[in-house]
Amino acid sequence: MSVRAGIVVTGTEVLNGIIRDSNGPWLSERLREIGVDASHIVVVGDRPEDLLAALRFLAAESVALIVTSGGLGPTADDLTGEVVARFQERPLELDEALFGRIAEILRPLLSRWPDLDREAVLRSNRKQALVPAGATVLEPVGTAPGLVVPPAAGDGAGPTVLVLPGPPRELQPMWRAALETGAFQAAVVGAGTFEWRIMRLFGIPESEIAETLLVAERDGLALDPLEITTCLRRGEIEIATRYAPTDAAAYAAFEAYVARRHGPLLFSTDGATIDAQVASLLLGEAGAGGVGDAAGARPARTVATAESCTGGLLAGRLTDRAGSSAYVLGGLVVYSNAAKVALAGVSSELLERVGAVSSEVAEALADGAIARLGSDVGVGITGVAGPGGGTPEKPVGLVWVSVALRDGPRLTRRLSLPGNRADIRDRTTTVALHMLRRLLIEADAPPPGEAAPGAGSDAA
Amino acid sequence: MSVRAGIVVTGTEVLNGIIRDSNGPWLSERLREIGVDASHIVVVGDRPEDLLAALRFLAAESVALIVTSGGLGPTADDLTGEVVARFQERPLELDEALFGRIAEILRPLLSRWPDLDREAVLRSNRKQALVPAGATVLEPVGTAPGLVVPPAAGDGAGPTVLVLPGPPRELQPMWRAALETGAFQAAVVGAGTFEWRIMRLFGIPESEIAETLLVAERDGLALDPLEITTCLRRGEIEIATRYAPTDAAAYAAFEAYVARRHGPLLFSTDGATIDAQVASLLLGEAGAGGVGDAAGARPARTVATAESCTGGLLAGRLTDRAGSSAYVLGGLVVYSNAAKVALAGVSSELLERVGAVSSEVAEALADGAIARLGSDVGVGITGVAGPGGGTPEKPVGLVWVSVALRDGPRLTRRLSLPGNRADIRDRTTTVALHMLRRLLIEADAPPPGEAAPGAGSDAA
Repeated sequence: MSVRAGIVVTGTEVLNGIIRDSNGPWLSERLREIGVDASHIVVVGDRPEDLLAALRFLAAESVALIVTSGGLGPTADDLTGEVVARFQERPLELDEALFGRIAEILRPLLSRWPDLDREAVLRSNRKQALVPAGATVLEPVGTAPGLVVPPAAGDGAGPTVLVLPGPPRELQPMWRAALETGAFQAAVVGAGTFEWRIMRLFGIPESEIAETLLVAERDGLALDPLEITTCLRRGEIEIATRYAPTDAAAYAAFEAYVARRHGPLLFSTDGATIDAQVASLLLGEAGAGGVGDAAGARPARTVATAESCTGGLLAGRLTDRAGSSAYVLGGLVVYSNAAKVALAGVSSELLERVGAVSSEVAEALADGAIARLGSDVGVGITGVAGPGGGTPEKPVGLVWVSVALRDGPRLTRRLSLPGNRADIRDRTTTVALHMLRRLLIEADAPPPGEAAPGAGSDAA
Repeated sequence: MSVRAGIVVTGTEVLNGIIRDSNGPWLSERLREIGVDASHIVVVGDRPEDLLAALRFLAAESVALIVTSGGLGPTADDLTGEVVARFQERPLELDEALFGRIAEILRPLLSRWPDLDREAVLRSNRKQALVPAGATVLEPVGTAPGLVVPPAAGDGAGPTVLVLPGPPRELQPMWRAALETGAFQAAVVGAGTFEWRIMRLFGIPESEIAETLLVAERDGLALDPLEITTCLRRGEIEIATRYAPTDAAAYAAFEAYVARRHGPLLFSTDGATIDAQVASLLLGEAGAGGVGDAAGARPARTVATAESCTGGLLAGRLTDRAGSSAYVLGGLVVYSNAAKVALAGVSSELLERVGAVSSEVAEALADGAIARLGSDVGVGITGVAGPGGGTPEKPVGLVWVSVALRDGPRLTRRLSLPGNRADIRDRTTTVALHMLRRLLIEADAPPPGEAAPGAGSDAA
């Protein structure tokens, strides 16, 4: 039996469906990476008895570790620390030094709001410095510290509880800090170490991957030692595989099988996302494009966008990455037809003749982005995101995307996307990134008949 | 004590964070509508012992009802019906008529795939017609029927279990069918109906609301009948309150207290988000701005953006809403300085003199958006989103936002935002929307000394 853990997500808003929880799934994935299986994820409201009941339930299921998220704020309904102390039978003690550090964190906040009652704020934040006796404190990322609280009777006598704050931007770094603590490591002793690899494919349905797994076994591949999970995420297929280090050969054979069967649809074997690949390609990094990218050193290039139905989401996605100012010059959000003419230089005659949602206008937008921003690469997007505005000829979900190199080749594609407005807009940005990747890889590919630079061929 | 229910979501992929569950929150909201409180949502994998443990845990918590989702398919790992039968101590019996109806549903499917082994398919679907003795069958929406399974010893002797399929498009209509059954109604007898109201505030920390609740009680407000939860969401405070209809006066007093204490920081008392309020204000709807908006009919206005550090996220957020083409003309993503000059008409001399991150450039961007897109309102954003690029004078988190009416008043604000790159970018869009709201409300406010239109004053 492997080491198991339970996850408790607290918060009445989460329980009531007002806030969508992302911590439970995130923690479950992280646990799996360190060889620990989640037994249950339990969502509870801000009622102490319900939280205590959840902790006792998981303890009865013999988990070695319970991870809680949320309930560490300064308000009265934030009571996770208190309940966990009770559960582990460890009295709460004020950690004066910690309280001082929290006050220090609050200082800039308090100076920003001069009208606040400084004493009242510190009073409510004081409870964040109450620590169960014998617990390990994880330094605050926001104002709330986390805790690793061992069982009353010591290691192995019941689950250790890792107490983390609710906001993902606090929880995620604190999880990584928790991994380093002795108290955490003592709790998960015996968890195996596993390798964890991710392949990404774009352009096939998930059922096709189910078929691949069936056929691979029929072809004699040893998939048993591999724990393979597949999922569809933002329009891409992710194949995540966990295996013992001794089964590396089985994984290598599986990866080679997928590469053979799906060819260019497999775009990443090192887990790199399409966002990361496009960024590396624009920066001119060698081998940036992942699978199928034969280029060595390549020129760095700048990019600009002209978006209609995505309304700035592609520019927003490109600039999500730190350092993107090195290759993103900017973009045009041309939601109205007037803006397409005035900003992107699309001709009114063309709009009149073929309509805003057309290959011609997508190409004119890509060219307009290059011309107006002086970039090396341009992306033009125009489509019907719905829910209104569809016609029989141009239904909701019809989107044209064009990516072009200045004075160079271009790719233009007609998409028919399923889903609601948000799905259509998001999926369009994913497709645009894949088209950008292909354009950039092909632009830098060695001419046919020539070996890839660095491939060591002497036949060129 | 109100009537309580537990929710069990089954599926290894959900537990492992690969598939995002939407059924738990959806069921929780539906339960609340009928006056039933969810006590816990438990996610379990496809292991029968873990599912049984979850059912027993919830029964021990004295819930009147357990709703399960998933595990009703034809494959071997679908075992919810079987486990629930065991839990309620009711033997499974083949419902021949139901099996016939399932075969009928499968007929068109089988004829579309002539290669399928008809017998094999029916064999695996046969288990879907196995019904615990005494259970009420809910007709299939897909191929899986749902079940309402009373406790072994009859009504009230333990929880009734409502068994629903996993796909939301099957689960949701089947939930509505379940509400009509006598077995379901018997389980939730005594559930009350509740009111549910949301207030939103912007510009104060969550600890300040904790203080408000304390002070309100000290001032003699009856908060006991109100179930109040507060949370911080995208930089805004949300106060969600549930109460019995007979306690409406207590809620009204609480709302008035919050309005008095926090004044203009309380921007919504009807749950409307800042996104919805800005959309309504731009559309010219009366009373669109929520609390403090005295205007009646107002002019409709168009908006355009010029964004540097947010890189299109504000335009993306404005166009998230269906129908936004009525008021969003477009935007400029001016990530590079060259783009600020070429696209938004910011002077190079100004950039040289005060730097890109400055009030002057934010204002020039707002004006440039208005000028280039011909809009009534412009938003300019420039800042340091990090992680690099900060200096002692202009640290990471420093952002300037300016909102302006064409030839009219403007608001310009310096922000010092905490958090990482994504937080800073997201928070900036929230602040920009609040500034837009304020500008639009003030633009349409009746001149001082004049009563608001429709206020019925005869003194004007």
